[in-house]
Amino acid sequence: MTTQFGPTYVRAIAPYIAGKPISEVARQFGLDEARIVKLASNENPLGMPESAQRAIAQAASDLGRYPDSNGFELKAALAARYDVPPEWITLGNGSNDILEIAAHAFVEKGQSIVYSQYSFAVYALATQGLGGRAIVTPAVKHGHDLDAMLAAIADDTRLVFVANPNNPTGTFIDGATLEAFIAKVPRDVVVVLDEAYTEYLAADKRYDSIAWARRYPNLLVSRTFSKAYGLAGLRVGFAIAQPALTDLMNRLRQPFNVNSLAQAAAIAALGDSAFLEKSAALNAEGYRVLTGAFDRLGLEYVPSDGNFVLVRVGSDDDAGNRVNLELLKQGVIVRPVGNYGLPQWLRVTIGLPEENAAFVAALERTLAPA
Amino acid sequence: MTTQFGPTYVRAIAPYIAGKPISEVARQFGLDEARIVKLASNENPLGMPESAQRAIAQAASDLGRYPDSNGFELKAALAARYDVPPEWITLGNGSNDILEIAAHAFVEKGQSIVYSQYSFAVYALATQGLGGRAIVTPAVKHGHDLDAMLAAIADDTRLVFVANPNNPTGTFIDGATLEAFIAKVPRDVVVVLDEAYTEYLAADKRYDSIAWARRYPNLLVSRTFSKAYGLAGLRVGFAIAQPALTDLMNRLRQPFNVNSLAQAAAIAALGDSAFLEKSAALNAEGYRVLTGAFDRLGLEYVPSDGNFVLVRVGSDDDAGNRVNLELLKQGVIVRPVGNYGLPQWLRVTIGLPEENAAFVAALERTLAPA
Repeated sequence: MTTQFGPTYVRAIAPYIAGKPISEVARQFGLDEARIVKLASNENPLGMPESAQRAIAQAASDLGRYPDSNGFELKAALAARYDVPPEWITLGNGSNDILEIAAHAFVEKGQSIVYSQYSFAVYALATQGLGGRAIVTPAVKHGHDLDAMLAAIADDTRLVFVANPNNPTGTFIDGATLEAFIAKVPRDVVVVLDEAYTEYLAADKRYDSIAWARRYPNLLVSRTFSKAYGLAGLRVGFAIAQPALTDLMNRLRQPFNVNSLAQAAAIAALGDSAFLEKSAALNAEGYRVLTGAFDRLGLEYVPSDGNFVLVRVGSDDDAGNRVNLELLKQGVIVRPVGNYGLPQWLRVTIGLPEENAAFVAALERTLAPA
Repeated sequence: MTTQFGPTYVRAIAPYIAGKPISEVARQFGLDEARIVKLASNENPLGMPESAQRAIAQAASDLGRYPDSNGFELKAALAARYDVPPEWITLGNGSNDILEIAAHAFVEKGQSIVYSQYSFAVYALATQGLGGRAIVTPAVKHGHDLDAMLAAIADDTRLVFVANPNNPTGTFIDGATLEAFIAKVPRDVVVVLDEAYTEYLAADKRYDSIAWARRYPNLLVSRTFSKAYGLAGLRVGFAIAQPALTDLMNRLRQPFNVNSLAQAAAIAALGDSAFLEKSAALNAEGYRVLTGAFDRLGLEYVPSDGNFVLVRVGSDDDAGNRVNLELLKQGVIVRPVGNYGLPQWLRVTIGLPEENAAFVAALERTLAPA
């Protein structure tokens, strides 16, 4: 008999499914890498800002040294930007790291975590990874049902994950509703508010969650440099919360979790408001193009406040995979979301104008009557 | 009353103490950064190899994209180098990540982990972080007592950490003795063999732990690019083990734990045997210089096979901190190891010839009779 290692709950984990890399699709379908359009991972189609490029070129001379374990300069820049003490900030190897650290810092084996159906896959992974109990509330219109989430909080619940906007659906909860929810969560339950896409919000939808972090000692706001800031490949995210929370996060995080170049690039990107505005404007325009095409093709989609759109490409449960395969053959990579329980849908990242056009053309060819 | 968040075992963790960054020492002591010598973190004094510099310059154009989640190319390079299938490899955000993932993949709350007194601080942190029970065996001559470790394995022990060479003491266990130990560990207990410093071993001390990984399904060999390979700032480490172990590691690791530049740089560094040889030769020469000075000064030290030496700088329990402070004032950063239970000792990284000389001169001034 083969020896079985590890806890039962670890053996039960289904690993995260990442977007297919361009190189892999090129190999698999015999395509030219340069002609492949990747709209699969909610990356910024503008790539990394030039300001960050310059920052990493300068920082690249000292990479034999460990990174600054305390992220002194990046925390100082974030503290100044958000008007909080540096001690309120925790840095992560992407916000994925923040979400994992939070789960392990606040929840132990057997205790429960509340999150919504159709919310980010890492909430389930983090819960499973520590042997926690997942309480998953049904979604309403593909978004969070906050009343159901409140009602689902059990005696042993230690953490609630809320994504706003949510991935992979793009749904949004307005600030007043969200704050009312946070105010009602018991004070000994940590609310992790995952705002990975917050920089894409239209001006009239913005709200000040950092002010809430000052008001609610059980609120942890998670942000990332992987989306609008264009630094996905470098891995840097951060959390803002009061010291009762960040102190525990800092005990658990790996001492050198954020690499030196990520720290340097994030400081530069944080100061590059022009890049952020350009990215948001490009995204808003791309959103109009994609949803206009979906309307024209008669495809249902979920209104999105992120840099992606969830679109229903058929009414049978093989539709997502079938259309995805046809798109791949044409060199367009999007994200099937069957693993989210959405087998009729695809998640499409908003790209550059020419990438959006290539996707729409490939989709039209795929869906055209034979 | 203030709400207390998190499990008791998380609140009890004392965070890792990193080496003081050069910038911090410059600020604190009013010194010129350019004149500070840092021998505190066992980094390669040659810094990153030029081959890796070139690799990251090439890879820096695409950092808006997520890293390859599966590390296809780096795993292929490692698989070829070590003659194992790519599925036997797990990539980590430094080997710190490997050690943490292993603890969480194989041990659950309440179960025990065995490691030695005076071994790497992360073993204790990883154990505490999951609410595990630490079984710490007393060191012999500052090294692992393998017989005691075997005897200490309890019914609920799921993992044993062995560092070879060990940090912070530099002690070494010869290959035959180490394999005999691994062969005696129960097959359902995972042995994590942490070989962060293995590239510094003299030719006559080398052994083939990868061959052991083929023989022992419960052995996981951990390596890093942070030491001899000179990539500490980029964060990349890896583990080699059979799929029964790596499969669980892969379920638990964060999908994008290794950033794009780290992957590119590691591939380049792995192929740069000239840099590795130069680093090892420089280290051997520096070891002779430092230990020669310690002999001359009548200071006890632990014979080391790493890129650092543990030296006893006084016979009272304030000696380490006192001498460390005097060295800091002279712009020399080394590592006090009171947190390891070694308050009379300092750990000194072997640097460039001029750095070693500066340290020896500062130490002589500090210890000279007033």
